[in-house]
Amino acid sequence: MQNLTGKSIAIVATNGFEQSELEVPLKTLREAGATVHVVAPEAGEIKGWNKTDWGNAVTVDKTVDSVSADDYDAIVLPGGQMNPDLLRVQPKVLDLIKAFWNQKKVVAAVCHAPWLLVETGIIKGRKVTSYASIRTDVINAGGLWEDSEVVADQGLITSRKPDDLPAFCNKIAEEILEGLHERRAA
Amino acid sequence: MQNLTGKSIAIVATNGFEQSELEVPLKTLREAGATVHVVAPEAGEIKGWNKTDWGNAVTVDKTVDSVSADDYDAIVLPGGQMNPDLLRVQPKVLDLIKAFWNQKKVVAAVCHAPWLLVETGIIKGRKVTSYASIRTDVINAGGLWEDSEVVADQGLITSRKPDDLPAFCNKIAEEILEGLHERRAA
Repeated sequence: MQNLTGKSIAIVATNGFEQSELEVPLKTLREAGATVHVVAPEAGEIKGWNKTDWGNAVTVDKTVDSVSADDYDAIVLPGGQMNPDLLRVQPKVLDLIKAFWNQKKVVAAVCHAPWLLVETGIIKGRKVTSYASIRTDVINAGGLWEDSEVVADQGLITSRKPDDLPAFCNKIAEEILEGLHERRAA
Repeated sequence: MQNLTGKSIAIVATNGFEQSELEVPLKTLREAGATVHVVAPEAGEIKGWNKTDWGNAVTVDKTVDSVSADDYDAIVLPGGQMNPDLLRVQPKVLDLIKAFWNQKKVVAAVCHAPWLLVETGIIKGRKVTSYASIRTDVINAGGLWEDSEVVADQGLITSRKPDDLPAFCNKIAEEILEGLHERRAA
């Protein structure tokens, strides 16, 4: 993992995030020297989902209302079946993701979180992957779906599942250090 | 509710079905005189989801492998965030749904279950509704999405959420009694 000292990352999630998909990037990217905030719609704690049942909670560092894409180099979106399904109906969350996209910053989504890229429309015409079950939704939204542990297309980073997290985190670091990416507006 | 004596209905689900969306159609359609089977990929029990946590289990009457669309007048697909996400990657489940469709029988899906209509492709060009969070997936799949408690289009019946269940169940009875419906093949 490359050194991320001086870089800032927002992990945006709500209840039902797949536990490892928040915990592993949080730990890995902090250990690499980045400032990493857990950002959620409401203050307090959000509860993880550990494969088949509720798991660990994590402290919310900042609310969606209190942050701006201006403050970060990257946004990371954990999966889980519930978490992105709850977030995709929240306009402020969608606006925040689109702001990262429009500022040409890194946008990273794993597992079921590409639903948020579907909802914002930024997946259209981009090479991506996702959890297998949402492949059809990704393709119907215009995503160019690949079955790879990590896919990066101009700073849009996607992975399929918890096993892919090491490759996902490494690619996040690499793409942050590359700087701003070419983009069409969302 | 109209009398359904002599009619047979398969409710197809797996773990994580939204509890009321299986229990209410099961009870209501049985009380109307129909034979109703809970059909799941595996024998035993499947566990419901009661709004925010695991809820009641229900006994599986038949496995997907052991049934055929020939044996029923209608298929009913409960929602929940997990249940249809698990079913949509199972080819035998998708084939069963398509068989009901191709036999011009009633296909009814509530909440997140329209993902199964997306996955089979039968939603394309049809008037439908769904839980609000998957509206974009439905539209991207070619569904003509409406915000109504129940939508019926040639025996394809959809509703949005648990509050819509009385209208959903009434429409299932009505469409079964209408007989076979006009369809293009899936």
